[in-house]
Amino acid sequence: MITVYSEEHRLRNARTELHGGQLVPPHECPERAQYVLDRVSAVGLGEIVAPTRYGLEPVLRVHDRGFVEFLEHAAAEWAAAGNRGEAIPDCWPARRMAQRRPNSIAGKLGYYAMAGETSITPGTWEAARAAADAALTGAERLQGGARAAFALCRPPGHHAARDLYGGYCFLNNAAIAAQSLRDRGAARVAILDVDFHHGNGTQDIFYERDDVLFVSLHGEPAEAFPYFSGYADETGAGAGTGFNLNLPLPRATGFDAWRAALAGGLKRIRSFAPEALVVSLGVDTFAGDPISFFRLQSADFASYGGMIAACRVPTLFVLEGGYAVAEVGVNVVNVLTGFEQA
Amino acid sequence: MITVYSEEHRLRNARTELHGGQLVPPHECPERAQYVLDRVSAVGLGEIVAPTRYGLEPVLRVHDRGFVEFLEHAAAEWAAAGNRGEAIPDCWPARRMAQRRPNSIAGKLGYYAMAGETSITPGTWEAARAAADAALTGAERLQGGARAAFALCRPPGHHAARDLYGGYCFLNNAAIAAQSLRDRGAARVAILDVDFHHGNGTQDIFYERDDVLFVSLHGEPAEAFPYFSGYADETGAGAGTGFNLNLPLPRATGFDAWRAALAGGLKRIRSFAPEALVVSLGVDTFAGDPISFFRLQSADFASYGGMIAACRVPTLFVLEGGYAVAEVGVNVVNVLTGFEQA
Repeated sequence: MITVYSEEHRLRNARTELHGGQLVPPHECPERAQYVLDRVSAVGLGEIVAPTRYGLEPVLRVHDRGFVEFLEHAAAEWAAAGNRGEAIPDCWPARRMAQRRPNSIAGKLGYYAMAGETSITPGTWEAARAAADAALTGAERLQGGARAAFALCRPPGHHAARDLYGGYCFLNNAAIAAQSLRDRGAARVAILDVDFHHGNGTQDIFYERDDVLFVSLHGEPAEAFPYFSGYADETGAGAGTGFNLNLPLPRATGFDAWRAALAGGLKRIRSFAPEALVVSLGVDTFAGDPISFFRLQSADFASYGGMIAACRVPTLFVLEGGYAVAEVGVNVVNVLTGFEQA
Repeated sequence: MITVYSEEHRLRNARTELHGGQLVPPHECPERAQYVLDRVSAVGLGEIVAPTRYGLEPVLRVHDRGFVEFLEHAAAEWAAAGNRGEAIPDCWPARRMAQRRPNSIAGKLGYYAMAGETSITPGTWEAARAAADAALTGAERLQGGARAAFALCRPPGHHAARDLYGGYCFLNNAAIAAQSLRDRGAARVAILDVDFHHGNGTQDIFYERDDVLFVSLHGEPAEAFPYFSGYADETGAGAGTGFNLNLPLPRATGFDAWRAALAGGLKRIRSFAPEALVVSLGVDTFAGDPISFFRLQSADFASYGGMIAACRVPTLFVLEGGYAVAEVGVNVVNVLTGFEQA
């Protein structure tokens, strides 16, 4: 399958992540994409292509315009306000407070953030746009008849909601791609999120819709980031009721239990009969991941790639998380080769 | 007037505040209280007494029990989870996310926080309890017939809501004192908040009540912390409609405009005919304050102390903010002597 990749991901290169009460080097770092790209080349997965530029229109199909404009200008506004560190929110609209966007950049950060670990830095916007373009390029290939494509997106996207960023995510690459598939004619699109963390942003974007099914396997929210999304009883609303399937799993879940949950999710996807499938491919389910708590081994990733292939739906893989940096390439590409060889 | 003061405030001694994207020494530091105490002594304001211990019952009259238990154990739980820095939230329930309390300490921090600058540290709980006791002790003196009392509280309290901490605040000392005045027989209690920042916590606690009037002068929320509270159209709800008066003021407000707003606030208080008045006394309206944007001079504080005295209501002053540390003592005590001499 093709891999869509842009060097612009390197523009997302924050110095600091708020983690454990300290400012540490970010877990979501440029080396992650390099390891994946190297592995794609090493196994000869297929052609590596640069993304097409699609402009903002497909982004604005799932994100709020004020939010997108905020992302574009936040780093410059923050610097202009005289702040010395990277842009990190320190106040937000909590329960019963006003959901009004302030004018000051410090207030806007809190208004648009759902997490504070994710510094906004110069270059973040450009990298996020290029990642969205990579996902859109992969989606276009599916509609050109490809069985599968891999969007090597960085920064990731699945925590970004209609008007919220955080969890290392700014634009929701998978959601933008899924919407583009709908807009180009696919009647039903399914999104399968296998990242360790719940794809709260993707859930949020499609929560009231029955044309995009969202299925997610993830660490149970009472114990795992993003904490405030991903419960099993979040099943959709309005027309979307029944089109959001959360499969939270406990600490120390190994591959047997994880695979059983995946089988249930794939069953729901098959019954939905999608014309395209988008996989939010995070590999932080790996036993060695430093910020997660499942126990998958590298060979397990190839195994579940084959399970996804058995759906026989054109499939776009979109890179999400995975922070055992040196193993990210092997684990991601194992999913893709497992899919190809099934 | 008497000053209620406990050395236990020194137990609140965080090393880090998240500010401008960096971890810096906290603006809200023990030296603040020492400067105030020294100035109280220097001018001979009156007797300095230790707080009585009241236990948790009066605290639980305004705060959620789960929240109070969280505050008591948060620092220990955070350390036990292996975190190396001080306890700072990095994820919270943003728009449309689930308002469910997670089990993990990182999740609980985000659930109970409205701001991330405020590290929770060992000793924070003990200091916060002692500050609440200081406010309660001052309130008891009013009901013993005193014209006024000063609770030299640290940490401050007015950003703490029923189940939210942040803005350097944990327990809402002023709200706890106002409720205790009600519980001991005062039919109507007014709270005047002259801190630069909106007292979002106090507003939240009494928002649906007509027996406690809340009046606040503060930097306009679109430009100033806490950003998501303090708009003029927040006037109360239910039975409390009309009993919440916000007077937001723009950048660079000097004493003339500030005094005019105070006169309006005091007029509303007089029409309410309270049997007791609690003043949330922050002096970060001072021109030299490092994190605020009003322009009061030290002599102005004495002037407005006299204006408050003219209400002729038994008055409890509760210390809130003020971060031009060396001037905090003079400015606070100027309000108190201005009140006494009126």
